[in-house]
Amino acid sequence: MNKKEEISISVIKRLPRYYRYLDSLKRNGIVRISSKELAQRMGLTASQIRHDFNCFGGFGQQGYGYNVPELYKKIGEILDVGGEKKMVLVGAGNLGKAVANKIFSTDSGFRLIGIFDKNIALCGNMIKGIPVRSIDYIENFCIDNKPVCAVLCIPSDDMKELIDMLVRLGVKSFWNFSNYDILMSHPDVLCENVHLADSLMTLGYLTSTEGQA
Amino acid sequence: MNKKEEISISVIKRLPRYYRYLDSLKRNGIVRISSKELAQRMGLTASQIRHDFNCFGGFGQQGYGYNVPELYKKIGEILDVGGEKKMVLVGAGNLGKAVANKIFSTDSGFRLIGIFDKNIALCGNMIKGIPVRSIDYIENFCIDNKPVCAVLCIPSDDMKELIDMLVRLGVKSFWNFSNYDILMSHPDVLCENVHLADSLMTLGYLTSTEGQA
Repeated sequence: MNKKEEISISVIKRLPRYYRYLDSLKRNGIVRISSKELAQRMGLTASQIRHDFNCFGGFGQQGYGYNVPELYKKIGEILDVGGEKKMVLVGAGNLGKAVANKIFSTDSGFRLIGIFDKNIALCGNMIKGIPVRSIDYIENFCIDNKPVCAVLCIPSDDMKELIDMLVRLGVKSFWNFSNYDILMSHPDVLCENVHLADSLMTLGYLTSTEGQA
Repeated sequence: MNKKEEISISVIKRLPRYYRYLDSLKRNGIVRISSKELAQRMGLTASQIRHDFNCFGGFGQQGYGYNVPELYKKIGEILDVGGEKKMVLVGAGNLGKAVANKIFSTDSGFRLIGIFDKNIALCGNMIKGIPVRSIDYIENFCIDNKPVCAVLCIPSDDMKELIDMLVRLGVKSFWNFSNYDILMSHPDVLCENVHLADSLMTLGYLTSTEGQA
């Protein structure tokens, strides 16, 4: 089944948030919670929560609420947090290092197996126990290790050739921190874009208009 | 006028993208473009572009297209890219350093004036010419310098006290990289959240379901 085509992206994007809140409830020893209570804590509506969970078959019992540890476990399974999806990172600067830390501290089911940079001065450095290799080795590394996902923490220049090669070698999803528009040339891959500049400019607009209010 | 309340956030979030594409067109010497051509390049529809621009009074002339440098300039003005909104950054680790670089390389109208960390070992380091100061000094710094925005590149623990203080001292917008839910306790501030873990987990879900397709 390709759930991706059945469930709207906005529901999917809420799953990690549910997972995070449930983790926090679990840590606080809360075993059972109603959709109403969960909604209040998360700033959602109870009907939205029930709708979201129904997309995956529903996890509650009418009038009885949700069992927190069970729901946490089930959402974790849906998110494939225990997966072993192999991932490579391109870019070992400050952003690459921060992102590598995030990958290691997040239950995402990804396993970072290789880090690459074109800056020779960075090669040989260790990030989370993984050596930074020259970008010249990425092709052979991908042939040998078959990662399914690539993280791009480099500027947009010269990106086309790299993306074309990674897609050719079987990479089917990208966590993209660059401004390069991957889907324009490869509409079939999965792409999660993090456009930090757009995010900051949006905040700039909001902050400046707020000042005029 | 408080534009924030009049124009939908989805339109606002597209403005930086328009600005980016127009910059690229301008650099390539393109002086005029129709909404249809711009739509094709951006993967939008022409009517969506016309609708977005009409929210700000419309910038084109029927049948004549948009003047690229003029449109770039006008959108820049709307985004307040030439502004001088003072901003402080909390967290001088890898993420903080990467985010400081992004602030300096983005036309957002923000001016980063202070960087703080609770890790004494980082204090005194220079990032983009700004010394990292101990978090103990942030209160007096804000009283003296009156920043309007704070960037949070620290974990969620002990965040409540910091946010409460910053809001009390006049900070009205946050670029939030932590999981701390600022709007829950301060519904009146502006908050642009960058939840990297949620983004990665969403990609994890999509990548794993794609594999089952």
